Amino acid sequence: MINSSENLQRLIKELENLPGVGRKSAGRLAYHIANAPKEKIESLVNAINIVRDNIKKCKICFCLSDDDICNICSNENRNKKQIMVVENERDMIAYENVGEYKGVYHILGGALSPLLGIGPNELKIKELMARLSADVEEVILATNSSVEGETTATYLMKLIKPLNIKVSRIASGVPVGGDIENVDEVTLLRALNGRLVL
Amino acid sequence: MINSSENLQRLIKELENLPGVGRKSAGRLAYHIANAPKEKIESLVNAINIVRDNIKKCKICFCLSDDDICNICSNENRNKKQIMVVENERDMIAYENVGEYKGVYHILGGALSPLLGIGPNELKIKELMARLSADVEEVILATNSSVEGETTATYLMKLIKPLNIKVSRIASGVPVGGDIENVDEVTLLRALNGRLVL
Repeated sequence: MINSSENLQRLIKELENLPGVGRKSAGRLAYHIANAPKEKIESLVNAINIVRDNIKKCKICFCLSDDDICNICSNENRNKKQIMVVENERDMIAYENVGEYKGVYHILGGALSPLLGIGPNELKIKELMARLSADVEEVILATNSSVEGETTATYLMKLIKPLNIKVSRIASGVPVGGDIENVDEVTLLRALNGRLVL
Repeated sequence: MINSSENLQRLIKELENLPGVGRKSAGRLAYHIANAPKEKIESLVNAINIVRDNIKKCKICFCLSDDDICNICSNENRNKKQIMVVENERDMIAYENVGEYKGVYHILGGALSPLLGIGPNELKIKELMARLSADVEEVILATNSSVEGETTATYLMKLIKPLNIKVSRIASGVPVGGDIENVDEVTLLRALNGRLVL
């Protein structure tokens, strides 16, 4: 409780609503904001406002974008014949950070989950199928390696295969740097079944 | 790198400047801001702006305050005869969270540190001395238990004692719930020397 300033108390409450921000970090952030030079805070607030007012979803891949078509879909150097299907933008960013992938993306907006009431209509699956013209050479299924992610990948594989388009699934196995003794059994089995002949 | 939106990239950079926010959490926060309902973000931005535009330092204790005099110093139920001296507002909050202390505070704004060029003039020591009228019954030195905090406490003790005001220092010892075998030697020695007769 900050008894000395009600405004600070209100700010801390707002900050606590952010993901991954607990009571202590909200306090630290609020103090930073209270003590930082006004221009610095102004430029943070501006950046927030610009995103809040201008962000939209790309009409092709459904990632967050400044324009109707995102920078990746409108980039001439990206290979439009290769589409990586991911659950959400954060997974896309993870692959963008690797820097190796030169194709485009399709953001499903989640994974199939009967328990949570998420069926094919709740995801951008219709929109994915509409993108699959004769031009497309490969669809890479990069949904998570969870039950929901696997179910979604299988579902999509069955939908796309009949179209005579190559469908692939990202490999699952022992993480690089991981200790085999600490890896769960399902992953070990996957790593064995998916072994590469050298 | 978020290649799909420059506005998001800018926001993530701004968020990374906040204390305790790394690249991954900045990304998570930015996505939250991009996806959250506009009103929610508006109320966060308002809270930031109000703090930025209105926060000041209490003229008595120098903690962050909405008015010239903070809610604690102007609270009639707080004992003005007992002053707890702390290094910064976060330490004050820590004691406020305990809820037991009913006196007032004095925020030094740091601790003496010849290495960092922080001498008595860089701290609110003159201002503390000015508060010490005949009315004050006790000054509690609650600076950190670090070298700088101890030096500051000793320095203040020597200044205040000649005024015939009771000066006390918060106890240092084994933390509650702490394992003696994991506590460092200096702390163990302190705990021994400061033992209470039962």
